This record gives sequence, structure tokens and C-alpha cells, in this order.
Amino acid sequence: MSYISRLQAAVERTATAACVGLDPRFEQLPPDVIAAASGAPSGMPQIALAFEIFCKRVIDSVASLVPCVKPQAAFFEECGPDGTVALANVIRHAREAGLLVICDAKRGDIGSTAEAYARGYLAGEEASAAPWGADALTVNPYLGRDTLEPFVRVAQDRGAAIYVLVRTSNPGAGTLQDVTMADQTVYQRVAGIVEEMADATRGSDAYGCVGAVVGATYPKELVSLRAAMPHAPLLIPGYGSQGATAKDVAPAFAPDGQGAVINNSRALIFAYQRKDLVDKFAPDEWPMAIAHATGEMISALRSATGQAG
Amino acid sequence: MSYISRLQAAVERTATAACVGLDPRFEQLPPDVIAAASGAPSGMPQIALAFEIFCKRVIDSVASLVPCVKPQAAFFEECGPDGTVALANVIRHAREAGLLVICDAKRGDIGSTAEAYARGYLAGEEASAAPWGADALTVNPYLGRDTLEPFVRVAQDRGAAIYVLVRTSNPGAGTLQDVTMADQTVYQRVAGIVEEMADATRGSDAYGCVGAVVGATYPKELVSLRAAMPHAPLLIPGYGSQGATAKDVAPAFAPDGQGAVINNSRALIFAYQRKDLVDKFAPDEWPMAIAHATGEMISALRSATGQAG
Repeated sequence: MSYISRLQAAVERTATAACVGLDPRFEQLPPDVIAAASGAPSGMPQIALAFEIFCKRVIDSVASLVPCVKPQAAFFEECGPDGTVALANVIRHAREAGLLVICDAKRGDIGSTAEAYARGYLAGEEASAAPWGADALTVNPYLGRDTLEPFVRVAQDRGAAIYVLVRTSNPGAGTLQDVTMADQTVYQRVAGIVEEMADATRGSDAYGCVGAVVGATYPKELVSLRAAMPHAPLLIPGYGSQGATAKDVAPAFAPDGQGAVINNSRALIFAYQRKDLVDKFAPDEWPMAIAHATGEMISALRSATGQAG
Repeated sequence: MSYISRLQAAVERTATAACVGLDPRFEQLPPDVIAAASGAPSGMPQIALAFEIFCKRVIDSVASLVPCVKPQAAFFEECGPDGTVALANVIRHAREAGLLVICDAKRGDIGSTAEAYARGYLAGEEASAAPWGADALTVNPYLGRDTLEPFVRVAQDRGAAIYVLVRTSNPGAGTLQDVTMADQTVYQRVAGIVEEMADATRGSDAYGCVGAVVGATYPKELVSLRAAMPHAPLLIPGYGSQGATAKDVAPAFAPDGQGAVINNSRALIFAYQRKDLVDKFAPDEWPMAIAHATGEMISALRSATGQAG
């Protein structure tokens, strides 16, 4: 089964396209998680174990609520090899819990090197087909169209997918992405490549195995990019802590509620520290705070898109 | 001491700017390396161990000949967490052998996520300052100028450096890098940002802690980019198997032979399989073939640049 068929089924089952971002930050971890990891050697092994314990409990809290999670590789890699072991364990746990996993590692390289990344990360339908076991991977297009092709081939073979960075959510995103040639910006050119690859790989699916990362923090661009890439599944970061709302992301969806997943990291996984929730949940009730915040996001998305729960 | 001071001292000591690329590929490993790794559990642990054994012996063969090595993260990551443990061990071994290590991982992300990558990879002068222990890291600029800044801050703090992808060596590099706005291409704009950051971080050094990756396979662009970034140390891939020669890369250097390192991966580390060397070295003499091929490259660079040995 293709990635998109599996994603669409999961979105239908949960009646939401919310994606929970797994961005563990040590200084924000709940005290009981720190305590549970204290048996490991101090330093990186302890931090990595705490990340693993935390993310697995986050997964358990949201597994029945959302279709997918998005671990951010950087926070795990910051712990060195111990962290990457934790990342692989977290991905496996999420897959076993029935979630799709979009590994946010923003990889990109030339030729056979790109293929090595693709084979390592993109497992697709069979989690055991690649050591990192992900369903999808975020990919950086700067090196050029030919460097996306090895990722596309592996994704198609395995029922996996890639999300190509098109318009990112950071304040300086425009530095290169907005550079204009004749009547087209760089990000529009990337969007053109993505749509071509998405259409070429979709078979009888509505969407292909090549998607796009489009930041929710630029709502106008989101509208035009949705139109420019009708066959690309979108991964939308920027919801929550970065400021974007359900109204901002509503145009990412097709009328049937498909075509995009909306990621939210900090405002969900560290919900127990949010000003509006800190009085409602005790520190050791943080998994309940996550479930509550995820439920809120799901409701907001349903209202904004007119979908029934 | 800054990265550039340490690099310049190493280039002076070895009288070359050749960099040995550590791109282990299982199907090309010598039989004795495969045999030495056969005690590990089969599959990824065995491949990762073979990569580690091979790269450590490559390092031992070239440690007295060159200033630096460049491990390619993708090949290690393809083995999953086992591979990343091997990568960290390889980097540690290279540092202990007195080599500078440029980790070729082409990372890039927004804000605090970029900082996590920087803190994880960039150790700088003290190898123990970061779990991956590298002196320098390759970085992808697509996400925008603001996303380079966390890398620059960490690099400056620790006597490390980054090499920003400007013009890559692959056939399709131009897809985005050549997009032209008014009178400037995307890669020229990236070059402008790199030069600004290099100049701002160089203090009393000739070069700053922000460098540029410029492929040797586009010699004309190399000449103009060297001129456009006088204070950026260059990392030049594409020499050897990708087709570039000593003559192509000579314009990358300042008259004193500084300012650039020239990477060569496959044509050095798998020299024992090269058509022109396969009759000169038995398979188990592969470390000698590497030393021989590295010596050849060093001589070619010296001739092309008029440097004494």
C-alpha cells in the first residue's frame, strides 16, 4: 500500500490531520521523566534515555487521537549516538502503536549518497525495511532536482514518501526561497518540480509519494502553493507556538479533509507548561495535558474546515 | 585557537590541502575488512563494524600525509543507529590521529533546531565539547540566512567552522542554484551571505569560521566564487572520480597555498580497485594503495599550484 493510502485511511479513522511533533527539549521535560532516566550513566546517555521515555509516553497519549507523529532528528542527534539509538526506538514504538512516522531530518545529498539516506530512513509499509523505519522523510531540495530522484525511487518502491522543503516557516525563509527569476520565485520553482514528481508517482491515488513542506506562518503562500501542487501531500509546520491558527491552515485541505497534515510540537508535548493549562494539570499529569491539548487542536481544525468529528 | 588557524597549521605541516573523504561502501570493502567484522551480529551491526574498521585503517594510512578527513554521514546513517555509533568512533579516531574532521552531513533547520545540530556536531578545538566531536560541518542554506546564524555562533564559540553549500558538484546543481534574480543567481546570493559571515567572524585570521562548498566540477564558477568570497575557506568536492583535476581546483588557493581543501573520496579510499592500480597492489595491500593514491594527488596539487613539497 502506498504511503498516501495509508495516511488517508489514518486521517479518516481519526477524523483529523493533526500531527504531533516530537521535539524533546531536556529543560522542559517533566520531573518524573527525568527521575525515570536517572539510572542511566549521566550526560548524554541519561538525556537520550529521558527523551526516549518521554516520547514513548507522548506516543501512548496520542496514538488513538491522531494519524501521525513527526520526530525532529536534531534533538536526538544533539545527544550523539545515544540519541540516535533513542530516535530509532521512538520511531519503532510509534509504528507499533499504529501511527505513521514522518522523520523530520531534512536530508539531502548527491547521487548515491542521497540513495544511502533514502535507504536508511524510508521503510514505508514494512517498518523493518529500513533501519530507521520511517514512513516519510523531509528532504532539502537545494542540491537540485537530480538529488531528489533517488529519494523518490526508494519511496515509490517501499510505499514511503518524502516531503520536500518548499516554503519553510522561519522568519528568514525568504532569503533564498523568495529569489525571483522572471516571474517565478525559487520556492515556486521547487513547487513545480514537486508537483511534477507527485503527479508522476500517484498511480491511482489522489496524491503522489512526493509532498511538500509549506509553513503555516505564511498563509497567502500556502493558498497559492496548495493550488500549484494539487497532487502533493502537504506537511504544514508552524501551528501553535510559531503562531499559525486553524484558520490559517484550513486552505491546505481538499474538501474531503485530505491532502495535508498539520504539525504542532511544543504547544502539544509541553502543554503542561502552557500558561492556559498550568493550573488545570499537575506536573505528573502531563500526559493528560497532552491529550487535552491535542483534542483542542483537533476540534479547532474541525471547526475551521467544517469537518464533522 | 580558531578552526582556520588549526587548519592552516595542518596544511603547512603536510604541505598539502588534500582531504580524504571517508565514504565507506560495503560492496567495495576489501575482503580482510569484511572478515575482521564477521564476529558482529550479521546485518547492520556487521556492516557498521566493517565501516568502522575500514575507516580507522584509512585514517592510519593517511594521518601523516594530509591535514583533514571528511566522513560522509549518509553511508553511516544507512546502517541505522549502529552506523552512527561507528561514525562517532571514526571521528574520534581521526581526531586522536591529529587530523581535522569535516563532518559532511549537510544539516540545516530553523532556530533552536539548527542550534541543536550545531551543538551536537561542532566540537571545535576540544573534541569532547560535542558528542560527534567534529571540527567542521557542512550546512545547507535553503532555509535562509537566519538558520545559518545558530551554526555560526556555536562555531565561533568553540573554534569550529561550517561549510555552507554554495555550488554543489552534481549534474543537476543548477536547478535552483542557477536561478537568476536581476543580475544575481541564487548561488551568488548564498556566496554573498557566506562572505559577509566569514569576514565578520575572522578576527585577525585570513579566513572566518564560515566557509563554502564549491564543486570542482564547475571550474568557471569556482574562479568567480573564489573572488566573491575572499575570506571564506573553501571545501572543494568533485576531485577524482567525479572528474575534476588538479588544474581545475588550482584557482581555489591563495598564492600561499591556503584558503581551500580539496576532497577526494572513492579514488583514494578504494584505490586498490582502480584500473591503473589493481595490478600494482594485492587486495590485502589496500592501505598501501591508499597511501600511494594520496601521494599522487598531493603531487598533482603541488605541481598545479607551483607549491614545493
